[in-house]
Amino acid sequence: MASTQARTIKIVLAYDGTDFAGFQRQANARTVQQVLEEAIAPIEGAAVNVAGAGRTDSGVHALGQVASFKLTSTIPTRELRQALNATLSATGSNDVRVLSVEDMTGEFHARFSARAKLYRYRIVNADLIDPFERRFAWHVPRTLDLDAMRRAAQALEGTHDFSAFQATGGKTSTSVRTIASSVWTESPLAAGGRLLIYEIAGSGFLKHMVRSIVGTLVDAGSGRRAPESVAALLQSGERAAVGPTAPPHGLYLVRVDYETAAPVSFS
Amino acid sequence: MASTQARTIKIVLAYDGTDFAGFQRQANARTVQQVLEEAIAPIEGAAVNVAGAGRTDSGVHALGQVASFKLTSTIPTRELRQALNATLSATGSNDVRVLSVEDMTGEFHARFSARAKLYRYRIVNADLIDPFERRFAWHVPRTLDLDAMRRAAQALEGTHDFSAFQATGGKTSTSVRTIASSVWTESPLAAGGRLLIYEIAGSGFLKHMVRSIVGTLVDAGSGRRAPESVAALLQSGERAAVGPTAPPHGLYLVRVDYETAAPVSFS
Repeated sequence: MASTQARTIKIVLAYDGTDFAGFQRQANARTVQQVLEEAIAPIEGAAVNVAGAGRTDSGVHALGQVASFKLTSTIPTRELRQALNATLSATGSNDVRVLSVEDMTGEFHARFSARAKLYRYRIVNADLIDPFERRFAWHVPRTLDLDAMRRAAQALEGTHDFSAFQATGGKTSTSVRTIASSVWTESPLAAGGRLLIYEIAGSGFLKHMVRSIVGTLVDAGSGRRAPESVAALLQSGERAAVGPTAPPHGLYLVRVDYETAAPVSFS
Repeated sequence: MASTQARTIKIVLAYDGTDFAGFQRQANARTVQQVLEEAIAPIEGAAVNVAGAGRTDSGVHALGQVASFKLTSTIPTRELRQALNATLSATGSNDVRVLSVEDMTGEFHARFSARAKLYRYRIVNADLIDPFERRFAWHVPRTLDLDAMRRAAQALEGTHDFSAFQATGGKTSTSVRTIASSVWTESPLAAGGRLLIYEIAGSGFLKHMVRSIVGTLVDAGSGRRAPESVAALLQSGERAAVGPTAPPHGLYLVRVDYETAAPVSFS
């Protein structure tokens, strides 16, 4: 068959990661990539390969994941969005929704074109966790020193080698990343205790990096390590010296930014 | 065995109703009552019968359901709360939590002593529903006239015979109830569209009454009925003339009020 001029499509996605084995396709597990590819195939009339901006782990959520793929179908973007959501709904995938669909130039690629990402981590710091939060926040009942966590978080801002915070098995040419902001905020919870929210924005993230950072910052808040030790971790690169990896269900990929927009800022 | 002086315990509960077949125990289905009774029995060393203030339907949530039961165990209330939550957690029931435990006088009964209840119904009135809201709000994508819904809601305030809004199979001596307030509020959603919240406070509610009211009010908002027709429904008592019953997953039992407190107000 003659080759057809392909469009490059960018989609923005939200998903509840609870019942997904992460974004990336794998054998014998339900993934976001698989569910999307299966929704697109009948529209295209052929298999389509979807690339995600971030390979979120099993259980990690997304408010604004970005994915891209090539399409020869001439379906208008608005109809494509409706068709994808209708198919996801009809196939029982109500835990993922396509928020927007856009035609891009041929060079666009969700992962390689990304300039910055914003991740959010939610902690319920209270005696009890509300049943409605159990899949959407990490429950840390012990007393946490937020001031210590803030000082430890600040040490991560700037350009550093984050190899200490990289899971074994992560494969990248370099573990140097630039973190634009690393900030904790808190708000009171109606039932008592407080919600702690950590937001980290940066040029890119290594495998398990955010969860490993959160585990380390919570160690600083628990008095298990000095806030100042985080700077030393960045120097040493010692994986064994970081805190435990925080559970996936507190983590959200909030946003991915690209060159086309104004300079990156997450204010 | 000699009978022991029994305590009367009041507990306040929150639960995600998604995976429960309602509050009330039934054969071959997981209910809140069953899960609670199974958590209390090992502490008491005997079967315990738990009474709920409201018999929430399958899929309906609670932020402040109240239940009561008799207990001979002398366990302090604080420890009882901890023990119940630990048992619920250990048995995989992370979708229900005991928020508080209180010793009451012998006459207290969660249902019979209740003076007022507050229910809330959440509607996502937007093109798409956020995956995180799919189990916690009714998705109504069509345009709704909130002003019409407010006028229709107001007609319900006061003392009326609500037999038109009662499910067949509901068994009560009278279908007259007093509604203290029946109000809609709205707030914008980040992804577009709006969240509509209906709150209804009253002396008591018939089977499916709140969901039947919400279905009728949404009909008024959709232009399927005149807002003024709601007053006529209360007069006629015609079940066939009300709107469809709204789905359970948008409904929350928010609070139950008792005599001991100050005069009932839900402001």
